[in-house]
Amino acid sequence: MTAGGAQAKDGLSGEALQRKALDAVDAGLDASLARLFGFLRIPSISTDPAHKGDCRAAADWAAATLTDLGLAATVIPTTGHPVVVGRTDTGAARRVLFYGHYDVQPVDPLELWETPPFEPRFGAGAAGRRTIVGRGASDDKGQLLTFLEALRAFRAAGGAPPVDVTVFLEGEEECGSPSLPGFFAAEADRLKADLALVCDTGMWSATTPSITTSLRGILSVEVTVAGPSRDLHSGLYGGAARNPIHVLADILAAARGADGRVAIPGFYDSVREMPQEVREAWARLALGPEEFLKPVGLSVPAGESDRMLIEQIQSRPTMEVNGIFGGYTGEGTKTIIPSKATAKISFRLVADQDPAQIATAFEAFVRARLPADCSATFSGHGGSRAFLVDPASPDLAHAAQALREEWGVAPVMVGSGGSIPIVGQFKSRLGIDTLLIGFALDDDRIHSPNEKYDVTSFHKGTRSWVRILQALG
Amino acid sequence: MTAGGAQAKDGLSGEALQRKALDAVDAGLDASLARLFGFLRIPSISTDPAHKGDCRAAADWAAATLTDLGLAATVIPTTGHPVVVGRTDTGAARRVLFYGHYDVQPVDPLELWETPPFEPRFGAGAAGRRTIVGRGASDDKGQLLTFLEALRAFRAAGGAPPVDVTVFLEGEEECGSPSLPGFFAAEADRLKADLALVCDTGMWSATTPSITTSLRGILSVEVTVAGPSRDLHSGLYGGAARNPIHVLADILAAARGADGRVAIPGFYDSVREMPQEVREAWARLALGPEEFLKPVGLSVPAGESDRMLIEQIQSRPTMEVNGIFGGYTGEGTKTIIPSKATAKISFRLVADQDPAQIATAFEAFVRARLPADCSATFSGHGGSRAFLVDPASPDLAHAAQALREEWGVAPVMVGSGGSIPIVGQFKSRLGIDTLLIGFALDDDRIHSPNEKYDVTSFHKGTRSWVRILQALG
Repeated sequence: MTAGGAQAKDGLSGEALQRKALDAVDAGLDASLARLFGFLRIPSISTDPAHKGDCRAAADWAAATLTDLGLAATVIPTTGHPVVVGRTDTGAARRVLFYGHYDVQPVDPLELWETPPFEPRFGAGAAGRRTIVGRGASDDKGQLLTFLEALRAFRAAGGAPPVDVTVFLEGEEECGSPSLPGFFAAEADRLKADLALVCDTGMWSATTPSITTSLRGILSVEVTVAGPSRDLHSGLYGGAARNPIHVLADILAAARGADGRVAIPGFYDSVREMPQEVREAWARLALGPEEFLKPVGLSVPAGESDRMLIEQIQSRPTMEVNGIFGGYTGEGTKTIIPSKATAKISFRLVADQDPAQIATAFEAFVRARLPADCSATFSGHGGSRAFLVDPASPDLAHAAQALREEWGVAPVMVGSGGSIPIVGQFKSRLGIDTLLIGFALDDDRIHSPNEKYDVTSFHKGTRSWVRILQALG
Repeated sequence: MTAGGAQAKDGLSGEALQRKALDAVDAGLDASLARLFGFLRIPSISTDPAHKGDCRAAADWAAATLTDLGLAATVIPTTGHPVVVGRTDTGAARRVLFYGHYDVQPVDPLELWETPPFEPRFGAGAAGRRTIVGRGASDDKGQLLTFLEALRAFRAAGGAPPVDVTVFLEGEEECGSPSLPGFFAAEADRLKADLALVCDTGMWSATTPSITTSLRGILSVEVTVAGPSRDLHSGLYGGAARNPIHVLADILAAARGADGRVAIPGFYDSVREMPQEVREAWARLALGPEEFLKPVGLSVPAGESDRMLIEQIQSRPTMEVNGIFGGYTGEGTKTIIPSKATAKISFRLVADQDPAQIATAFEAFVRARLPADCSATFSGHGGSRAFLVDPASPDLAHAAQALREEWGVAPVMVGSGGSIPIVGQFKSRLGIDTLLIGFALDDDRIHSPNEKYDVTSFHKGTRSWVRILQALG
C-alpha cells in the first residue's frame, strides 16, 4: 500500500496499521495522560534564570521519552536552554520535521491560580468537558505530546509511520528563542526535511478542527525614557522638572489613533491584503464580539474601525503595550518625579512587513517626540516575519482530509494572530513549508492563570496525528 | 516699653533686654552647641520600630530641656511616638505656638557617612564655613534648638519674651505624622495661640534669610483602569481587545498639554495669583535653570510655558505621575494584553484650590475618556490645601524687620513647592497663621548621608529668634 520505510517491512497495510494505532491511542489514554502529568510537573519557565535547571530537566525528560519511542535522541546545548532532537531513520521516501517547545510561560499572578500551577490535575470545563489544568497543559506540553503519543501508538501497533520523523523541541519559545539563530547556523543539517509540522495552534471550536495557514510576525521592543539624573521630590521640583512617565504616556498615546490605526509613519506600507476569497470566507464565518470578546469580559472590537473583527486579530498588524512601569509602584504614595519610565511593546506583523524596518520606524517615532532633557534607550527581544501557506499545497489537502476523517467535519483554514517565529526560519533556512495543526481551544487560558487543555483535545489530537502521518506518507 | 508679661515685671526695656539676650546667645554658644550634640546623639528614627525607645528618649530630652527653661512641660502619649508640649504663662497679651519635630530620617545608606551619623562632630563646609555633622543636625534638631536657645538667652538676660510661648514638638514628622489628627482632635485646646512659628525651612543663601510665605497643598490619587477580565495573549487578541495601558496612556496624555498646563476642566478656576509685588520680587531673584535644574541633569523648565521657573515650582499647581505600572514588568518579554493598569498621581495645589473638588474633577475627566469595555477605580491618599500668608500681615512685617536687623539684608519672601500639612492643620483646627522661618542651607544634605548644619545658621538663627520674639511682642 505505501512506499517506504518500516511500515512496508512488517507487512501490515497502511489502513490496518492506522486502525491498530488508533485503537492503541484509545487503549493507552490513561497512560498517556499520566506521562503528560509528569511532564507538566517540571516548572520549565524559560524567562526566569531561577528555572534554568528545570528547563534542563524538561529537555532531559523529552529526550528520554524520544529514546523510549525508539528515536535516536540528543540534548544539544545552546547559548541558552538546550534543544532536543530525535529522529527515525527507516528509509522512508519523505521526512517530516515536528517542532514543539518544552518551556512554559511564567505563572504570575500566582494568587489567581486555583491550584498550584505545577501540580497538574483534572478539572471540569464548559459543557461538561474534562480538562487537564496546569501551566503548559495546552501551551505547548500537552500539544506536543499529542504528536509523541501518536508515534507511540504506531509503535504499539507494531509498525511505524510511512514517513521518517525528526522531532525538534526547543526551550526558549516563550522568551523569543534567542538561541535559535545560532543553532540553525550550526546545526541546520540535523533538521533537513520535506515538510514541517507544528502543534502549537488552536481549533476553530471544540468540535471543528482547523489548520492555520497564516501567522502574524512579531517585533518586541522595550523603550526606556530617561529624564532627571535621579528621582526628584515632586513638591520641590514639580512643575519645572520633566517627568519621563508623562513623556512616555504622550508617545504611547500618539502612536495609536482613536480609529485603532498605528500612527507610526510607514507602518502599513508593506502590508499585504489577504486574497479576496479568503476575506469572503472569513466574512461567512461571521466571527462576532459575542463569541470572541464576551468570554474575556469585552464587547466592542478595539482595532481598526473599518475592519472585520477576524481581520483585526488575524491579518492586520497591531501595536500593544505588554507592560509599563516607572516611579513608585509600592503601596501608598511616594511623591517623586521618577528619573525614568519603561514600556514593553510588541508589534504583530503581517506579510510583507519587515521587523527591522518597523523597529527603525518606531525608534524614529519616539525620538521625534522626545522633549528637551529626555533621552530614550531601546532594547529588542527579537522579531520575525509573518507566514502564509500556499493554498494549493498537496500536503495541506492531505492533512485536511485526515482531520475531516477524525472529526467528521472539514477543518477551517484560518489565520492566527499569534506569532511562531520558527515557521519563518523553516522557510528561510530549510526551504520548507509548515503545516500548523493544533487542538487548543479559545478558553484554554494559555499564558494566564489556570491554563487548561481538554482531555478530548489531547485524545483526538493524538488520533489526528496518527491519521495525518499516515496521509502524508 | 512693652505691654505685658514677665518682661514688664523686671523693669528692663525691651531694647535693653534684647541686647542682653543677644549677648547671652554669643557668650553661651559653646554651651548651646554642647546641648545640641547631646540631642543629636539620640538616634530617634521614627520610621523604624527598633528605635521606638530612642524616640521616647528624645521626647524626654526635649521635655527636660523645656523644664530647664522654665516652661511647664509634658510628654503626651499618642498612638505612635509621644508629643512634647511646654508653655510659659506670664500673662502676656499674645501667645505664639512654636512647632518642631524631634524625630529624624533613617541613615541608610550607612556606608556613605564619613563618620557615624549619631556621633556629631564639627566639620568644614564650603567657603570655610564651620559645620555640625550628624543626622538631625539641620532637620530638625538643630533648627528647633535655635528657638529653645533663644528662650534660654532671654532667661539668661534676666527676662522673658514679650509674648507667651507654647512649644509643640512631635516625633513623627519623618513618617507622615499619623498620630497628629487624633492628637489635634483630643488636645487642640493645649495649642491655642495667636500665631504659629515653624523652624523647618531654609535660607535663600548662606547670607540672605528668607520667610516662606506660601506652601503648595497636595492631593494624591491612584487610578486603575480595568479592561479584559484577565490578561490576554497579545497575538490571539491583539487588535480586537481593548488594552488598559493604552487607555491609561491616552488619559494621562490628555490631562497635561504640550504647553505644560493641566487640561482637567476647572483645574485653574480657584487658583489665586500671587500679588504683583511678589511676582516682581521673584522676577528680580532671576532663578534660572542653570542654578535649579542643572544639578539634577535637566536644562529646560517643563511647566507652563508662560510662567517663570520660580512660579512653576512655587505658586502654580501641577499634576505629576509619581508611578505607573501595568502588565508584565519583569525581565524580557511576556506578550500579553493586561487586564489593568495603574497610575499614582499627585497634584500640588495652590490657594484657593480645594483638594476634594480637584479629586472630583479628575475622576470626571478620566470617566469621560474611558472607552467601551473599560472601567476605572480610584483611591485617595489624602489631601491638604495650600497655605498662603497674608502679605499685609503685621507679624510678617515685624519678623521680616527682625531678620533684616540680624542679617543686614532683607529676607526674601519665597514660596515652597512642597507641602507641610501641619501648617494647614494650624489654620483649619486652631484658626491661626504660620510664619515659616528657618536657617537651613541647600547644601545641608537633609535626608541624605553626612547631613550638616552650619554653625552660623545655628548661632545667627538663635539670635534671629531673639529678635523675632521681641518684635512680635
